[in-house]
Amino acid sequence: MKKHNFSAGPCILPQSVFKEASQAVLDFNNSGLSILEISHRSKDFVAVMDEAQALVIDLLKLEGKGYKALFLQGGASTQFLMTAYNLLENKAAYLNTGTWSSKAIKEAKMFGSVEEVASSADKNFNYIPKNYSIPADADYFHCTSNNTIFGTQIKEFPTTTTPLVCDMSSDIFSRELDFSKFDIIYAGAQKNMGPAGTTLVVIKEDILGKVSRQIPSMLDYKTHISKDSMFNTPPVFAVYTSMLTLRWLKEKGGIAGIQKLNEEKAALLYAEIDRNPLFEGFAAVEDRSIMNATFNLKDEKLKDLFEDLVKAAGINGINGHRSVGGYRASMYNALPKESVQTLITVMKELETQA
Amino acid sequence: MKKHNFSAGPCILPQSVFKEASQAVLDFNNSGLSILEISHRSKDFVAVMDEAQALVIDLLKLEGKGYKALFLQGGASTQFLMTAYNLLENKAAYLNTGTWSSKAIKEAKMFGSVEEVASSADKNFNYIPKNYSIPADADYFHCTSNNTIFGTQIKEFPTTTTPLVCDMSSDIFSRELDFSKFDIIYAGAQKNMGPAGTTLVVIKEDILGKVSRQIPSMLDYKTHISKDSMFNTPPVFAVYTSMLTLRWLKEKGGIAGIQKLNEEKAALLYAEIDRNPLFEGFAAVEDRSIMNATFNLKDEKLKDLFEDLVKAAGINGINGHRSVGGYRASMYNALPKESVQTLITVMKELETQA
Repeated sequence: MKKHNFSAGPCILPQSVFKEASQAVLDFNNSGLSILEISHRSKDFVAVMDEAQALVIDLLKLEGKGYKALFLQGGASTQFLMTAYNLLENKAAYLNTGTWSSKAIKEAKMFGSVEEVASSADKNFNYIPKNYSIPADADYFHCTSNNTIFGTQIKEFPTTTTPLVCDMSSDIFSRELDFSKFDIIYAGAQKNMGPAGTTLVVIKEDILGKVSRQIPSMLDYKTHISKDSMFNTPPVFAVYTSMLTLRWLKEKGGIAGIQKLNEEKAALLYAEIDRNPLFEGFAAVEDRSIMNATFNLKDEKLKDLFEDLVKAAGINGINGHRSVGGYRASMYNALPKESVQTLITVMKELETQA
Repeated sequence: MKKHNFSAGPCILPQSVFKEASQAVLDFNNSGLSILEISHRSKDFVAVMDEAQALVIDLLKLEGKGYKALFLQGGASTQFLMTAYNLLENKAAYLNTGTWSSKAIKEAKMFGSVEEVASSADKNFNYIPKNYSIPADADYFHCTSNNTIFGTQIKEFPTTTTPLVCDMSSDIFSRELDFSKFDIIYAGAQKNMGPAGTTLVVIKEDILGKVSRQIPSMLDYKTHISKDSMFNTPPVFAVYTSMLTLRWLKEKGGIAGIQKLNEEKAALLYAEIDRNPLFEGFAAVEDRSIMNATFNLKDEKLKDLFEDLVKAAGINGINGHRSVGGYRASMYNALPKESVQTLITVMKELETQA
């Protein structure tokens, strides 16, 4: 039976990418060798890395604007400490919108003073704080664009002269933004870009070189910029599969094309959450994420029936994170509209049967 | 045509592993989902991680000896700084046997004093220094068991009361050792264990907690031990493929079984290097690696002819590293004896034609 995969990440990727990646594990580019056994210095893999980096800059419309795209390892969790290691000399400003922001703040505090400019912890992070001010003397301002766990998303980013650092792990490549407003964008690959195992860092080169501490080579962005992400052996397969996914996105009309589809999917699901008397949304309406919809059953007694229907429909991965409970439907770029329609059918079916 | 892949890493893995990994990219465990789109918290993946860790401890015969196997990211290059971050309070002792040792020393110097107990830099690292002494007050002693670039390998490790840290990236799982002599063993996966994208760290837990500095969460071994390598999203596919390779090794009779085959392959090739008047070995005979054989043509004029014959035989990846030149045949666990025989045939053919 066809599965409808709403996993929060690692998550669904395009079916064509699975097919190509699977074939490359057997034979890459008709070389007679698996993608897993070729040298990362081989001409064929250097071409993959170059294309992946170029696609990132192209899709984000950052060509000629002084940015470099890096494919690193260690996830956003490693970026929490790397951003601070490379940028935090005196004070940094952080917006706290959930679990991942909080973790970023914890790591940054080891490197300097951290000012939390605003937090939505008072309501279990179900909204995005607004009208905060960013101290002019901060080395940088850090925020999380989309909160996977809570289902909230920043719709408008602050206008500031302070350098802007953003964790876009769960909504990069899903909507158009003026990406040139940001000095560092980072994202674990495993939502809209590829499989777990590589981390994208898009960095404006002139932001670097301003801290006085020594930085270990692997944690220094300059190391990776100077070697085009090939200072050491990169995660070859994860970069290759990311490149395939970025190619697919380009063919789908780039970010503008996928944003339209993402907005349609989200509108359909939120309309049902609001219409169906058995459910209620978790996140504040104006801050709802188009990637992760969080919702609850009003009557917990319907839990078993709902989950049986969900399972029977081939729906996977909609259990909410333990810090929120209830349900979370993640609707990343590669999730077909048909999967959202299937989930809506199940929600209506529950209404009939309950 | 069948390829004979002598790549230094990423390198050949068992053909059965390529087949299984390729299938899992389409459909993992008959779940209807790709291994690339499942949650790392799913029951099926947690079972993979558990089995991979258990296989490491089992194959290294470390059961019940206080060790933990971790699957991290960032390669040996990240371990260069992590080992120092976690262990270096005052002084560390390092043996310098080549490029990777030198890089490890460079990173450690940011965290404390480093005493280089011996070095083979005087002869472009073509031998392993012996008869050095390890200062009793060192926090740890660090060495590189096998030098991929130079083709040398430590045959006997020092007996010392100083904690022992070893980079075994290019020969782990290739030969029996008393692994319980070591306090930390680390290895990038991409030689004998799996594809690029994960790093194995085998750590004796009681070595930790002795430095006074604060350690960022992702760089702290304790973080990863306490979360069984699942503090953040692990590189799912790289861990899965490593698990398949470790299963294959177990079925081949474990390390004892593969060591016998590795010694046979190495003996065959070194015998031809020594016999054939057109070639000469690079590494000192007593320190020759059974994983990477480095050798040169005595007469550079034969280069084109040799390389044409190599190519015609379907041999891949035998160019030497730029710091040594000449040739390097890497004979990792999964390389069939037949590939070594093919290379020997080509070397003999050169002798006939030259």
